[in-house]
This record gives sequence, C-alpha cells and structure tokens, in this order.
Amino acid sequence: MSITVNYNNMMQYALGERGISDAELKQQEILAQSAHFQVEAGRGRDMQGWMDLPYEQGEIVKTIKSAASRIRKSCEAFVVLGIGGSALGPQAVFTALKHYYYNELPKKLRKGPRFYVCDNVDPERMNALLDVINVEKTVFCVITKSGATSETMSQFLIVYDLLKSALGDKAHEHIVAVTSEDKGNLIKLARKEGFETFFIPASVGGRFSELSPVGLLPAAVVGIDISKLLKGARDMDRKCRSKYISKNPALALAVLQYISVKQGKNINVMMPYSDSLRYISDWYNQLWAESLGKEKDKLGKTVNCGQTPVKAVGVTDQHSQVQLYNEGPYDKVITFLEVRDFRSDVTIAAGCEDFPDVNFLCGHSLGELMSKELYATRYALTQRGRANCTITLDAVDAYHIGALLYLFQMQTAYEGAMLNINAYDQPGVEGGKNATYALFGRKGYEAKAEEIRSSQPDADKYIIK
Amino acid sequence: MSITVNYNNMMQYALGERGISDAELKQQEILAQSAHFQVEAGRGRDMQGWMDLPYEQGEIVKTIKSAASRIRKSCEAFVVLGIGGSALGPQAVFTALKHYYYNELPKKLRKGPRFYVCDNVDPERMNALLDVINVEKTVFCVITKSGATSETMSQFLIVYDLLKSALGDKAHEHIVAVTSEDKGNLIKLARKEGFETFFIPASVGGRFSELSPVGLLPAAVVGIDISKLLKGARDMDRKCRSKYISKNPALALAVLQYISVKQGKNINVMMPYSDSLRYISDWYNQLWAESLGKEKDKLGKTVNCGQTPVKAVGVTDQHSQVQLYNEGPYDKVITFLEVRDFRSDVTIAAGCEDFPDVNFLCGHSLGELMSKELYATRYALTQRGRANCTITLDAVDAYHIGALLYLFQMQTAYEGAMLNINAYDQPGVEGGKNATYALFGRKGYEAKAEEIRSSQPDADKYIIK
Repeated sequence: MSITVNYNNMMQYALGERGISDAELKQQEILAQSAHFQVEAGRGRDMQGWMDLPYEQGEIVKTIKSAASRIRKSCEAFVVLGIGGSALGPQAVFTALKHYYYNELPKKLRKGPRFYVCDNVDPERMNALLDVINVEKTVFCVITKSGATSETMSQFLIVYDLLKSALGDKAHEHIVAVTSEDKGNLIKLARKEGFETFFIPASVGGRFSELSPVGLLPAAVVGIDISKLLKGARDMDRKCRSKYISKNPALALAVLQYISVKQGKNINVMMPYSDSLRYISDWYNQLWAESLGKEKDKLGKTVNCGQTPVKAVGVTDQHSQVQLYNEGPYDKVITFLEVRDFRSDVTIAAGCEDFPDVNFLCGHSLGELMSKELYATRYALTQRGRANCTITLDAVDAYHIGALLYLFQMQTAYEGAMLNINAYDQPGVEGGKNATYALFGRKGYEAKAEEIRSSQPDADKYIIK
Repeated sequence: MSITVNYNNMMQYALGERGISDAELKQQEILAQSAHFQVEAGRGRDMQGWMDLPYEQGEIVKTIKSAASRIRKSCEAFVVLGIGGSALGPQAVFTALKHYYYNELPKKLRKGPRFYVCDNVDPERMNALLDVINVEKTVFCVITKSGATSETMSQFLIVYDLLKSALGDKAHEHIVAVTSEDKGNLIKLARKEGFETFFIPASVGGRFSELSPVGLLPAAVVGIDISKLLKGARDMDRKCRSKYISKNPALALAVLQYISVKQGKNINVMMPYSDSLRYISDWYNQLWAESLGKEKDKLGKTVNCGQTPVKAVGVTDQHSQVQLYNEGPYDKVITFLEVRDFRSDVTIAAGCEDFPDVNFLCGHSLGELMSKELYATRYALTQRGRANCTITLDAVDAYHIGALLYLFQMQTAYEGAMLNINAYDQPGVEGGKNATYALFGRKGYEAKAEEIRSSQPDADKYIIK
C-alpha cells in the first residue's frame, strides 16, 4: 500500500496550542476502538454490504468486463443517467484515471466511447447533450437502486422515447439498467423491455456504491482496470482491520475530525493538488455530508451534527480560498491530497532572463511547481496554527483510487459510529421529496399539497424588485 | 431590471425564532447606510475602479470587439492562461452563456474557436491541453495584472516556447496579453515581443476584474454581447445607489449575511438551480472568501473574520448536500439562484403508466421539475428553520449575468465596509508565496529558506504508512 496519512499538522507538536494534544488523542482511543468494533461487527450486514464489495465480486467482474468490452466496440457515446452516488462515483473515477479532455480526443487515442454523466434535470443541459450525441450510437446506463428517483427516471423516459422513435424494437439494446434485483420499477421495466441489467446489492446504499456495478460498469466501459480498483480497496480494507489509530489510517482520520468538531471546526476542506482528483472531493462531499449530517442520534437525541465538506483544488484555489484559510476563523480542517508522481511533466521554458521574479522558475517543471506550492501552502498554514493533514498517493492509478475511495468510506463509517448516528439513512430529504410530489398533484399527497397551499404567503416587504 | 431578491425565509416572519427580526434588521440600518456611504465615497478611487467599469469603457469595448472578431476568424482554439479572478470570471460568463458542450459542437454551430481556461499548473492537464489543440491555430490570452504570477507566467513560457519553435517570428501573433499598462514583466515582454495588449486599470483588483478586459475579451471571442453585460451592470449599479435596505438588493444581501454571521452562521452556500450558473458560484466563492477572510480590521484589531463560501448545484446536490442542510447544525445561509425562463425545455415522455411513483412526472417538462424541486427544497428548509433566500433572474443572458456579477461585487464591498476591513487586499497569501520562492532558491529569500530548513521535521509517530 502506498497511501500515507501525515497528521503532524493537526497536533500541538506542529500547531502549538491550537493543535490536538497527545492526551486528547489518547482520550478518544476507547471511543475509536469501540467505533472500530461496531463497524467490524456490522461488516456485510444491514447497510454495510459495501465492506464485502472488494472481496465477493469475482463473477460480477467477469460479466461486467465482457459487457463493457461489447459496449466499447458498439457505440460512440456512453451516458450515465443518475444522480448523487450514482453519478459522483462514476464521474470521480473517470476523471481521476482518464485524459483531462477525453471526449475531445480523436477516437483512435480514446479507444472507447465518449463518456457523459448526466446528473441534473436542467432542460438546457439535456438538450445540449442531445446536440452532441447520436442516440442511435449511444448506450445509456440508467442507475437508480429504487427505480423511483424522479430525476433519473425522467431522463430515462426522455431518452427511451427518442430511442424507440429512432430504432423501434431495437431501442432496448441501448439501455443498461443498474438497479435493485428485486424491488422497484426499473427492474420490472428492464425485464419487460429486455434491458441488460446489473444489480446493486440491497445492503449497499448510493453513496457507498462506487465499487459495486454502479461504478464498475462505467469504469470498465472507458477502459479502467476494475480488478485493480477492487484490489486497492481490498488492501486498504486489510489496513483498516487494525483497531489502533497509529495503524489504521481511516480510524485516525475519523478521530482527528471528531476532535476537530469539538474544537469548533465545522468545516472539512478537501484540497487535492491534482486536477485529476477534483471530483474525488465532490464524491467525498456527498459521502461526508449525507452520512454525517443528522438531526438525531441513535438514541433519538437531537444532535444536529455534521461538518460541511468543502472542495478546493490546489494550486488553483490558493488564488481563491487560501487567504480565508490563513486569516479567517479557526473553523476548518484542510486535508490535502498529494500525488507523489505525476503521470507526465512539462519543463518551464526559458525566456524571462531579465525578470528575476519569473526567471527563477525556468528550467524547473510544472510538477515541481505543484509540489513546492503544496509544501509552501502547508507550511504557511501550519505557521498560522491552521489544522491540516496530508494524504499522499504514490500515483494516481486504479489501484490507488480504489484504496482512496475505500479509505474515505471507512473514515465515514467510523465517524458515524463515534457520533452514534445512523450513517446510512437520509431522512432529511423526505420533506423536499414529498413537497415535490404534492406540487405535481401526485395521488396520496393531497394533505401535503393542502399544507403548502395554506402556508403563509411571502411578504412583499421582504422582496426587492 | 429583472433580478429579484426574496429574503422572506431569512426572517422570523417565515423562520420563527431562528430568523432575523424586523428589529434586528432595523438595528443594522445605520451601519448599513454608513457602509453604503463609504462605498459610494470610494467610487472609482483606490481599489474601487471596478465601480467605473460599467460606465467608462466605450472606446475599450470597440477595440475589444474588433480584436475579438479578428480572433474568432483566425484561430481554432482560444486559451485563457490565468488563475484566480483571471480565470474564474471568464469561465463563469462563458459557462453561463454558451452551450453546455460548446467545445464538442461542430464548428458550424459553435461559430467561434473552441474555448479553454487553464487555471492550474498541473502538468498532466497542461499536456492534455496540448493534446487537443494545435498551437499554430491557437490564440493564448495571458492574463496577469502584476505580470509576476508564477502559475500564469510558467504557462506562458511553455506555450510561447512551443509557438516560437513552430512559427518562428510569427509566434507573437498568437499571444494577447491582458495586464497592467505600466508595471510588471508582462507589459515589458509584450512591448518587446509585439504582443497585442489590453489593460487592467490599476484601481481594479483580480477578483473585481470580470467587467474589465480580463472578462470582456474572452467573452467577446466566444460571441457574447459584452455591451449587454456592461448594460446589466450599469442598471444594477443604479439600483445600488439607494442607501435603503428595502431598495438596494446588494445592501440587503450584505446586511442579512452580516446578521447571520453574528448568529453563528459561518457558511455561505450559493446554490444555483441551473447548470449554466455553476461557475458563478465558483467566481463568487473567490470574491467572498478572499475579500472578507481577514485577520485584522482597519484599526489593526485581530478579527479573524470571513464566512466560508460553498458551492452547491440544484437539483443535483439535493442528492448530496441537502440532507446536511436540513438536519445538520444551524450554521449556514443558503442562497438559491433561480431562473424564471430556461432557454429551452424538454417534455418527460410517457412510458411508466404502471408505476405511479414515476408516472406522475409524465407529460410535464424538465424545466417544471427543476422549478418545483427548488420550491419544494426551499419549503422544506424553511419548515425546519433553515435560513435561505432566493435571487431570481428572469433569464440567463448577457444582461442579467452582468447585473448579477455586479450585484455580488456590491454585496461584497458593503460587507467589507460593515466589517470595517479592507476587502481589496490579500495579505494572507504572502506567506505561502514567499515559502515557494524560498523553496526554489530565489535570490532574496535566503532567510526564508533557512527558516524552512531549520523548522521542526515531521514526527514519524504522526504518520501512518
């Protein structure tokens, strides 16, 4: 394993009095070990099926690889229709492991189909997608576990209608459904229409599903080695078998955030110094926010907990957010994602001999500039007592990405256990969903519709036109 | 003007005891009016040149339009080299007003060159860019006011070297420099090499520069009507001449955040319900974070102020962040950006007659789904006492985008005045810059280098391998 967690700059050792003391860390050890015990005890059960994914998918991986190989040859574009975990995971892995301008590469270099993730119902964006793909040469991968996600099913209905108009009874060959095996509309539709199907285990929730067919199929279609993704996750899982903070990187990361929240740090910034990892932050943001942002703990006590995750990208956001990080409130932890070896580099050419404030860069490489700026930013933050830690990946490849995703899933699970909350539900989104149903006049939501209708109207005095 | 600010859901009227009372709003009125007075008094002076941009650029606009028209015809790709405000503004306006998959459209539909903003020094990304452009058919727009920004100048040196190899003494025709008229390296280089130049006024800082040539030139090159951008800003500026919260939308937005911070809301979420506005949030994040994240106020008192801005996109992030927003701590204000009329729509086709939990959508449109989900999300948040307000744009067009950018610049200026801080400097980034110089062995930074060398090494016990 070559993922390293360095939390020197979270500790009093580096930060001074604003840091965490050894005693505080020691004090949380029992809670951490009990969280570890709880997570291990739940392995594979209830909603913890995601912990089995690195081990139990031999046959599924084979089927996915063969389907992917067929799809790669048969189509010009591959479109994921999904939202939340069904979109963020595929997007994050694709962006990490494929060319920055993949869709603009000529077919010869791309080798596989162009790749799109459609995770909104913005009509302008849907029309824009239809401008650049030919549905007759596109495979749509519809991902929804429940088969009832309004956004994804709306997208599906639109494209399936277009496919039927264009291709008649061949339309079904252009849809792959990734859904629950035994529940929901999509599986029923898939059976009726004859779509190819892959299944999301009942014990795997959306935001923990990237290593299930949700993520594996899209990754395989763009030519990513999904066996290596799973191997990375497996090796990370082995490291997480330890109950000791000093050995288990996910447990250490969980405890550090847990203590930081107690210090008033309600913001959790993830800042990769690599453009390829920028969507890993977005994926993590859902994982952390939706798992840990909870009103009640398991005892029913009102806790209203949850750090707000924030994405920043180095070095870019040094010119946007770092002023705030250095001088603003002491309300955040910054986690840097560092890459030891970039997959390519570029030398900064000469041409500024007369300008010492630029010339010092010449002859060095961009990779060196990235690394030195990360070092310098981290150094400056630490000098100012700003909590930060660094996760270093030896390389950005399928193995390390699999390991990284699994690391964060474990961190989130431990954090949920330490907070004594259910990290696997999302009761807080029901209110909005029900109100949407009511606004559409869906049967069964008449009372909600009446409640909305009779709610107090906006006061004009608080509106500026 | 057809931008409306609705802050009902910030007030006790809608939120109950967690809201702001009329008395609290009243109480801040004098401070708000004094902030308004201070901002007006500084109009056009010191670093407030941005307030003149909507009025005083008649000649510049003409020159930009004619340069842009030439560039549109002469090249296949147009690349902005810049970082921070030099990148976020051009990216935000481009994304708001052009096709979602602009670069993938055939030339015939695109009409102008492909468009890239290169705002990082990631070597993999730079190489990826060079894979998809032909430098001989590309114009590079180098944007840095100081002419000393390490990232931008590194990019410039790399591409200029490639241009010289490919084109010899024609290379200079492929560079446009947007920089200070009388200071820094880039203007000297530009004069020596013969680059076309546009100037950033001395009184306009990076994050307030989108309505200067920094933003206008790239916008014009992709065919955006920059006169309308400026007209929108002008009309918004007129609305902001009022010192009354009830009439001046920027002042109201500033006061509401000011009071919210006092209530402990250190997070400012901007959530557009339109994919086209997603980079407006990124642009705003820099504006808000870098302007207001300050250690000292103008009296030298340590204040460590600054909300952390967060980007979310509706409806997408309902499936990622809204669980946290509904159930987590009461530590945020959510500002929705609503679009009244989408530029196109799509009807959700039939095909789910057997499934009532999907069928209710059929026959409605995606635009309607977006709007109803926004209404429902806002309703659910308000029911739970979560502070939110809504900015509604009649349409996404150059006029409204100009107005919106200017609205946020005014809000930020007022907020800075209310906090009694300098909203136009960024002293907190110097530490990291100097450390970078030292790490590169730049002359004059020997003491810093020595300081870094002699700083305490990381302790192994806080590293997990």
